[in-house]
Amino acid sequence: MGKIITLLTDFGLSDPYPAAMKAVILRINPEAVIVDITHSIDKFNVRMGAFILAHIVEYFPEGSIHVGVVDPGVGTARRPLIVECDRGLLVGPDNGLLIPAARRLGLRRVYRILEDKVRIGWVSHTFHGRDLFAPAAARLSIGERAEHLGEPSLSYVELSFPKPRLKGECIYGEVLYVDGFGNVVTNIDEKLLKTLSIGRGSRLLVETGSKRFEVRLVEAYGEVDPGTPLAIVDSFRMLELAVNMGSGSRFFGLKPGDRFAVKVV
Amino acid sequence: MGKIITLLTDFGLSDPYPAAMKAVILRINPEAVIVDITHSIDKFNVRMGAFILAHIVEYFPEGSIHVGVVDPGVGTARRPLIVECDRGLLVGPDNGLLIPAARRLGLRRVYRILEDKVRIGWVSHTFHGRDLFAPAAARLSIGERAEHLGEPSLSYVELSFPKPRLKGECIYGEVLYVDGFGNVVTNIDEKLLKTLSIGRGSRLLVETGSKRFEVRLVEAYGEVDPGTPLAIVDSFRMLELAVNMGSGSRFFGLKPGDRFAVKVV
Amino acid sequence: MGKIITLLTDFGLSDPYPAAMKAVILRINPEAVIVDITHSIDKFNVRMGAFILAHIVEYFPEGSIHVGVVDPGVGTARRPLIVECDRGLLVGPDNGLLIPAARRLGLRRVYRILEDKVRIGWVSHTFHGRDLFAPAAARLSIGERAEHLGEPSLSYVELSFPKPRLKGECIYGEVLYVDGFGNVVTNIDEKLLKTLSIGRGSRLLVETGSKRFEVRLVEAYGEVDPGTPLAIVDSFRMLELAVNMGSGSRFFGLKPGDRFAVKVV
Repeated sequence: MGKIITLLTDFGLSDPYPAAMKAVILRINPEAVIVDITHSIDKFNVRMGAFILAHIVEYFPEGSIHVGVVDPGVGTARRPLIVECDRGLLVGPDNGLLIPAARRLGLRRVYRILEDKVRIGWVSHTFHGRDLFAPAAARLSIGERAEHLGEPSLSYVELSFPKPRLKGECIYGEVLYVDGFGNVVTNIDEKLLKTLSIGRGSRLLVETGSKRFEVRLVEAYGEVDPGTPLAIVDSFRMLELAVNMGSGSRFFGLKPGDRFAVKVV
Repeated sequence: MGKIITLLTDFGLSDPYPAAMKAVILRINPEAVIVDITHSIDKFNVRMGAFILAHIVEYFPEGSIHVGVVDPGVGTARRPLIVECDRGLLVGPDNGLLIPAARRLGLRRVYRILEDKVRIGWVSHTFHGRDLFAPAAARLSIGERAEHLGEPSLSYVELSFPKPRLKGECIYGEVLYVDGFGNVVTNIDEKLLKTLSIGRGSRLLVETGSKRFEVRLVEAYGEVDPGTPLAIVDSFRMLELAVNMGSGSRFFGLKPGDRFAVKVV
Repeated sequence: MGKIITLLTDFGLSDPYPAAMKAVILRINPEAVIVDITHSIDKFNVRMGAFILAHIVEYFPEGSIHVGVVDPGVGTARRPLIVECDRGLLVGPDNGLLIPAARRLGLRRVYRILEDKVRIGWVSHTFHGRDLFAPAAARLSIGERAEHLGEPSLSYVELSFPKPRLKGECIYGEVLYVDGFGNVVTNIDEKLLKTLSIGRGSRLLVETGSKRFEVRLVEAYGEVDPGTPLAIVDSFRMLELAVNMGSGSRFFGLKPGDRFAVKVV
């Protein structure tokens, strides 16, 4: 039974770059169990990568090693990191990508990777995923310790997601993610809704720029007819604006980063 | 040597949803061998999912566990199922998706999954792939029995594919699938062709709506020049309308669900 | 610990064809470790497949088995091959696809696969990936020997990449690959640049058809501002024309097969 190493990158689905990382991992640890989280993070979109990584890591077994590579600064002064957490390890660039996930897993210590301790050959300035992060993760997976692969680092680049704001009867929220179904995932979480006694059956008024929509908070997409807009607590446990069997993003005109207001009618 | 669990969904290739299913599976069975069949079923297209699943399951080793998630009814009254077959197990929603594959594997018994017997945490109303089907499959893969994870169910939603009809000299067929090459897979199988003495070298007249095409039945795409239309018994063992190194779908103007007639010239 | 079998095809990411290959492999060797290199080779583009395969194989552990399927001639007289190399095995069609990779791994002997020695059922004329190459690779992975699965073959289809030419102060090069970031990978390798004393900081004049561009050779994309064109020795160890956080292909107007000239200013 091998250790789990997950990969999240913006490399896309055509190039052999994820395979190169897997090749290097398997050379160091032939028993590693490698799981692709996604390679379709929008290119260079560190925030999107950080959001996905933060929401997926807790589903994996404790002790899993998560490699994130969304890395516009590859080869420059930005540092390569190992982040040691209570319930896992994270490996990737020091640009904030790993931090929200690290907080979920219980951030303990941050190490700056030392090239000479992890590399298995030439280290390019263009592909640290293959040349530093993959070998670092593989070494961790065979029991090498973070403090032997890097040196402790007190500082690191922070990244956090905007919190929703309450003002009068309104919640002011922001779109964090739009999935492949067109579902609009917001930054308003389940707890906040409960605090405000918003739940199944609540009628919500959603304002986006100049437009207003009235939708019902349902528990399952199929509670409304196909094509009907709705609000729902989704599998991220966030308030989601959606259309049953349609695209919420298109209907509401919302994309990541967009702001909106919502209140109970 | 772990048990094989396959995944077929309409989740697409960008979102972390297949990874969430894998995470849950590996938490329950760290030795599971997980194989992606495809995550590119057209969204909500249960028939397309059922077609692909039915044609792939027999290639896997006996005893493999196949999870299918094309699930517009998630969270509603539609039931979550385990289907026990002679040569494998199927897990997914009760909307017909699993049934053609189950028939191929020798359908024995259908169980309605009991949430409390399979879940490992909160069960969302939006993502049973992660919260019910993945843990059910993982539990089956470590030897838990279907009758302990669910209760027997006598009824289930049926799904079958249209049969070709014979009338005079004509076979009236329907398109079941168009693959990424543009190859048009029909519902006319190899056996029917043999019965009608249609084989290599037969010249066929294909009528689609207002258009007519004459093509030769070949054994290999490369028997005709690039760009030339052809008919062939394909790897699904079905009559396929294709163009060598081109798109049969574009040439013949055919897509899934379209009807056509074919006869020997 | 299972043997590694890699897959490179032009099957795309929607169809169940790679899964069918994996199913067959796992039936013969349940412990095989299967790694997707890519399934997004442009359809029928043998050269592109050969380029990617040649550049990735060396990252895998010695003894890995690499299956390549870009196979416009499937089912015709073109032969199915096993290529035995010093540091691995290659399996695929005799159309040149495997040869550059084989040279990298130390080409020793070429075998023509004998259908009856490898197949596990019906052999289609349309999908040798599933019916011949996958079972051949799986049999090799459990220790069956190439000489028992095929017969030695003295001839095979060659494939090589155009070499850059030097003339006066100019290097005349060709584009071999454009990756998903839009980075333009050329056929000018690191060694040639060193021979010509071209290195970090060199200013290069790039001529493509009627256009001329002046760029600096940098070590990391981030050495120039976002949107700025640059030249770099990339992770293929080739000269690459790129734009920091942008598309070099669009900026320089270059795609695979295009020629250009470059000289030091």
